[in-house]
Amino acid sequence: MISTIANHRSVRKYIDTPVSDDIINEVLTAATRASNTGNMQLYSIIVTTDTELRQKLWGAHFKQQMVLQAPVHITFCADINRFSHWCRLRNADASYDNLLWFINASVDAALASQNLAIEAEANGLGICYLGTVVYNADQIIEILQLPKGVFPVACLVMGYPADEAALTDRLPLDAVIHYNIYQPYTANKINEIYADKESLTASQNFVTENMKQNLAQVFTDVRYKRSDNEFFSGKVIEIIRKQGFAI
Amino acid sequence: MISTIANHRSVRKYIDTPVSDDIINEVLTAATRASNTGNMQLYSIIVTTDTELRQKLWGAHFKQQMVLQAPVHITFCADINRFSHWCRLRNADASYDNLLWFINASVDAALASQNLAIEAEANGLGICYLGTVVYNADQIIEILQLPKGVFPVACLVMGYPADEAALTDRLPLDAVIHYNIYQPYTANKINEIYADKESLTASQNFVTENMKQNLAQVFTDVRYKRSDNEFFSGKVIEIIRKQGFAI
Repeated sequence: MISTIANHRSVRKYIDTPVSDDIINEVLTAATRASNTGNMQLYSIIVTTDTELRQKLWGAHFKQQMVLQAPVHITFCADINRFSHWCRLRNADASYDNLLWFINASVDAALASQNLAIEAEANGLGICYLGTVVYNADQIIEILQLPKGVFPVACLVMGYPADEAALTDRLPLDAVIHYNIYQPYTANKINEIYADKESLTASQNFVTENMKQNLAQVFTDVRYKRSDNEFFSGKVIEIIRKQGFAI
Repeated sequence: MISTIANHRSVRKYIDTPVSDDIINEVLTAATRASNTGNMQLYSIIVTTDTELRQKLWGAHFKQQMVLQAPVHITFCADINRFSHWCRLRNADASYDNLLWFINASVDAALASQNLAIEAEANGLGICYLGTVVYNADQIIEILQLPKGVFPVACLVMGYPADEAALTDRLPLDAVIHYNIYQPYTANKINEIYADKESLTASQNFVTENMKQNLAQVFTDVRYKRSDNEFFSGKVIEIIRKQGFAI
């Protein structure tokens, strides 16, 4: 397997060595080589290195320390603004302001981000995706001045790693792969595929520290709980509409 | 740059050599090494090689010939079903049936797909993404028997290429990259960044063949036109809701 893919780990601690313009250009070029719908390139990539802006982004990312540490913050946006602008100038009737194209453009932005991540790691850099970009999309939109037609769907920080994190566990392959058609999960199968994850020392520590009965409850009651999920989901629907995509 | 990334082209013609189980396992393992939200792996990957099923999928993909030719059809789904099932069995209150988690899971599925695509190409295989998976998600759901909580967001065919397609054009890098904050596009800038694309022989042929005034109109009036966009967007919202995600 490509060693960069096999050895990927999210890096959460960075040294302050800046990333050269040459390397930034190379990872960005790699991003744009990814497949995309109709070769319309319905995405924009915002590369933020300015210290003051990164300080603001840090706030939007629930003050995760790595946002301040990593010298580069990259935001991948679904973007129908540029393409629609081109259409308007050519007397062409653009109609991409809807959920179908929000999804198409979001998938394309995500594919570009993963190409960038792999190319970055192949150059000795570390990256960490920040899911918070969707939670606080309104703040990101304001800080990065994203116009209508543009929505931030993926985001990562990039820099030189301060240490080598351990490889993260994954469910056994047969937990997420289905052959030919989807195979419904029985209770036995669920117990089997989550057994290793539940028995990890780290998982058991999470359970104890959070005074929960099991690992699933750490996810549902602490990390990603109902009140937050419902609040942020309501918010994200509003923001997507505000950015001009009909839902 | 990683040569696999630099040399990516979508392959639309395949020879009928099957892909070995070893290679399929390797590309699937590569997929699962991608970053994902909270390491929850909220995706499922359906690997379809059965001829009869691929024949049905071919219909759902607007009868694109490559779906019949390529020996492997892979569907990447946002999947909260497995995780929620685990939560139920652990008396944990799962609340991922909303748009926030649809987006999180969709981005994760897309990242996994791009890892798979790169690993496949590094093994001499070709791939082509099929955007139609979202357009006809209802048919894909029926054919692959996807339960509630599962939605197909990305899809590709995979096999050994019959020929080497040309590298596809991309907009100049500065067309899609913004430094620090989003830089609004002026009409001049739009004209400048689309100039090369518009002057390609292939583009000019599209315009002539379709009897349009310019390339933008080929997109808006022929390839991705308003009536289709509005119809399929309405359909996709319904399907997402039907699969159990609140919008």
